[in-house]
Parts: sequence; structure tokens; C-alpha cells
Amino acid sequence: MSWLNGEPCDGLPIHDRGLAYGDGLFETIRVAGGQARLVERHLQRLQDGCERLAIPFDANLLRNELMRFCRALGQGVAKLIVTRGAGKRGYATPQPCQPQRLLLGSPSPAYPPQHAENGIRLFPCETRLAEQPRLAGIKHLNRLEQVLARAEWHDPVYAEGLMRDMSGRVVEGVFSNLFIVEAGKLRTAPLTRCGVAGVMRAEIIARAAQHGLPVVIDDINYAELVQADEVFLCNSLYGIWPVTALAECVWPVGPLTRKLQSVVADLLSDS
Amino acid sequence: MSWLNGEPCDGLPIHDRGLAYGDGLFETIRVAGGQARLVERHLQRLQDGCERLAIPFDANLLRNELMRFCRALGQGVAKLIVTRGAGKRGYATPQPCQPQRLLLGSPSPAYPPQHAENGIRLFPCETRLAEQPRLAGIKHLNRLEQVLARAEWHDPVYAEGLMRDMSGRVVEGVFSNLFIVEAGKLRTAPLTRCGVAGVMRAEIIARAAQHGLPVVIDDINYAELVQADEVFLCNSLYGIWPVTALAECVWPVGPLTRKLQSVVADLLSDS
Repeated sequence: MSWLNGEPCDGLPIHDRGLAYGDGLFETIRVAGGQARLVERHLQRLQDGCERLAIPFDANLLRNELMRFCRALGQGVAKLIVTRGAGKRGYATPQPCQPQRLLLGSPSPAYPPQHAENGIRLFPCETRLAEQPRLAGIKHLNRLEQVLARAEWHDPVYAEGLMRDMSGRVVEGVFSNLFIVEAGKLRTAPLTRCGVAGVMRAEIIARAAQHGLPVVIDDINYAELVQADEVFLCNSLYGIWPVTALAECVWPVGPLTRKLQSVVADLLSDS
Repeated sequence: MSWLNGEPCDGLPIHDRGLAYGDGLFETIRVAGGQARLVERHLQRLQDGCERLAIPFDANLLRNELMRFCRALGQGVAKLIVTRGAGKRGYATPQPCQPQRLLLGSPSPAYPPQHAENGIRLFPCETRLAEQPRLAGIKHLNRLEQVLARAEWHDPVYAEGLMRDMSGRVVEGVFSNLFIVEAGKLRTAPLTRCGVAGVMRAEIIARAAQHGLPVVIDDINYAELVQADEVFLCNSLYGIWPVTALAECVWPVGPLTRKLQSVVADLLSDS
């Protein structure tokens, strides 16, 4: 199922700047029982991205279209792409621009349930995230670093890959955010120089605080990751995966990770 | 005029990874008298990019299709885009992939002839180029930095913008490469950490050497730019523009810039 500006489609106009320059943003949204999960967080991040790129944003139009699409999809994943729209040759942004809205439906991902139960092994990616504060945090369409990083491993023993920045700091997974637990405290990277600020990360930060578990948002270096008591990944499709192995390091599936899995379990139900 | 895989088209399939992730490359090629200029250099850079991104590359297929397209276009600009093709959800690259070839024709750009004759004023962009060696030099589809930089100015008194890296080094223009002349010697940035290695830059380096003018490929800091005897920009559509002003700095249109303009003049003729 694919919609362009609210109508079924199978192609994007060839002069769209989303293709030419990756000039746009996207959201990948869990859909269950005909409804989008964490819809306001997804729309908020999309709005943040549109503001950063100076792409006009109409929250009501997008919300209504997304809700209608999710009712039709029922179950699975809705990918929402907003591009700046058509442009002539050259980088100068058209004034005014006509942003394009794409909605692509796909089945629920078939992640093994053991990933959440027993934890996963992380692949140490060599591809580093470049530091670009003007693009950090938002989910824009320039994703070659993730493509290169994901291409580094084929062995399914690795469920995700660890991404570091050019200085070696621990940032995130290829398609996940990362938290560590040290002495009962949660920590996640600030994502102000690189990385994508995931909606599940934001939801975990909010709900953890409600449960008396504040999260420190600060740089994580590799040694701190190695010495952490617990490590876990999150995203809005699979929720929380404990990390139990990375190179020579092993971690248990710890109590805070388990607690947070139960705290967000409602977001992952099928109805 | 738009072709997809050799056939007229007006849309790109919606699941193409060129849109999803900017997972592809492009070339912007001057066409005159039904022929592509610097065609082998364009194909070589595209091949370098495909190798870097592990996208299959078929030089003969692309050359033949491009030549056929340029004969039909006659005069103007041919933009050649190669993407990794369709993919399912997720960053993992499809095996095998089916790269897509797009050709988009547009009229010759209407740059004022005074730019080449009298020189241009450069806008000092605040947007910095992030350092990512794995993507430096190639002309991939992740171009948000250029979009942000080009959006910094609207005043047509500026014909181009200066882009520096995160350390302040002088790298290139938004859609051009940059050379300086100091004590009779040419210098241009190495483009191994960021930037796009333009085909006109490569052609100038080759032809300058043939005229006894070797080019030093080395970092350029801002002070060295300011103190340069001559500064010029180049790309494959307009050739060479002298830079005569940037903020408080002024430079003359110098003798080496003039000489190089004459050395590449044949590439810019209309027949």
C-alpha cells in the first residue's frame, strides 16, 4: 500500500528533491489495530526536522492522512516520508516549495522474539558517524552512513551494529538508540553532533522518569560502555532489546532493562 | 526529457533506495552539439562512487545510454542518477540489487557571462562540511549540507558560497571546486575527508600539468585563502569563475586564472 499526498500511487515524480538530494525526512511507525503508535512523538520529530530544513509542515494534514492510512493498513509498519517536493536543477530551494507526503505500508518486521527475551549480539561497525550539528537528531533522508554500516556484516548472529562517532564515542545502533545502566542510573548519548533521536528513546526517557529512574543525557565513551552493568537498544518497532555481547564483552540481561521492557510493553501489543 | 533505464518515464518506483536513503550517485554533464563533455571523467567518477558504495557498475551500458540521451537532448545539461534500486524496509542492501539509471535533461544554465569575465563574489557559508572519509570525493545523493549552505543567501550579488570543514579549512564551493594561486603555484584541497572531486577540477589538474603548471593538492586554511594571489572556482557546466571578493577580501582576476580559462575554453563551446 503506497499513497502520495493521500492518493494511491506507485511512483514519485522524477524531479523530486527527495531523490535528488535526500532533501526530506521520514518516520517509521508501528501500526497495530489500525492505529499508529507514538503518533504524536513521530509527528513532533518530523516537525522538528521540517523546521531544521525549512520545509513547511502541516501537522493536522499529516495526522489525518496518517490515521486514515493506518486504519486501511491495519497491522504492520507505516513509513511516512516528507520531501521538499519538485525542484529545478541546482541546490537553491524553490520558493514556495510544495512538500510531498508519501506513506508506504509494509508487514510487521519478523524479529525473533529471543532478541527481546535473551538479548542480542552487537556488531562493532567500522563506519563512523560524521559530526554535523545542523543535521544531528533529525531523521532526514541522507542515510548512506547507515547503509555502509549495515553492509559491514551478513552473519545473522549479529542483530544490530554499534555506531561510534569520529572520536570513538558510542552513539547508537544502525537502526536503534542505545542506553547504558551504571550503578542504577540510565545514560544515553545526547545526539547533538550526530545520530537520530528516536521516538522510543524519548518515550523511555519520559516513562523512566515517571518510574523514578532519571536518565542522564551525556556522552558515552567506549570504556564506559564496556564497564556498564547493562546495555540495551530501543526503537519504535521492536521496543527494547538487551545487548548481551559485543566483541569480547558480555553483559547480563539486567533488572533495569527488564523493568523498562515491562514499562513500554503496552506500545508493542498487537491490538 | 527523462529516461529510466533507457525508456522515457516521469516517475521513479516508490520503493527505490535512492529516495529512501539517498543510496546512489549522480553526475551533472554539459551537453553540446548532441555530445556529453568530459564523458570519460564523469563515468570514471561514477564508477569510483559505485565501487565505494558497492553498487554494480556497467560502463558500456551507461556510456551508450548517455550518448543516446545526449544526441536526443542536443544542448543543455544531462543529469545521470544511478541508485541501488528497490529495497525492502531496512538498511540492509538487497542481494542481488538492480541498480536504476535515470537521465534527466534540462536547458543550459543561464549564468551571466560576467561571472567568467569579471569574477564573482563568494558568500561565506556558515554550514560546515562534516568529515566522513568513506563518502568524501564521490558525488553521492546525500546532499543536505549543500541544500542548507545554498539556503543561507538569496542576494544574487553572491554567485557561489564558500564551504569549509568543521576545522575551518577551505574545501570548495557549494556546487564548485576551488583553487588558489600563490607565488605562481596552484593549490586545491585534497577532498579525502569531505567535498566532491569535480571532473572539471580533475581536468584542470591534468591540463595545468601539461602546460607546466603543477597543482599542489593539500589543505588550504582560511588565512592562506585570504593571502592568495588569485582564487578561482570551477565546475563542468560553467568552466572557471575568478573569485574577486569574499567578505572584506578582494582579489584581482589574475593571469593564471585567465590562462586556465583559455586552456579549458574548448570544453565550454556550444558545438
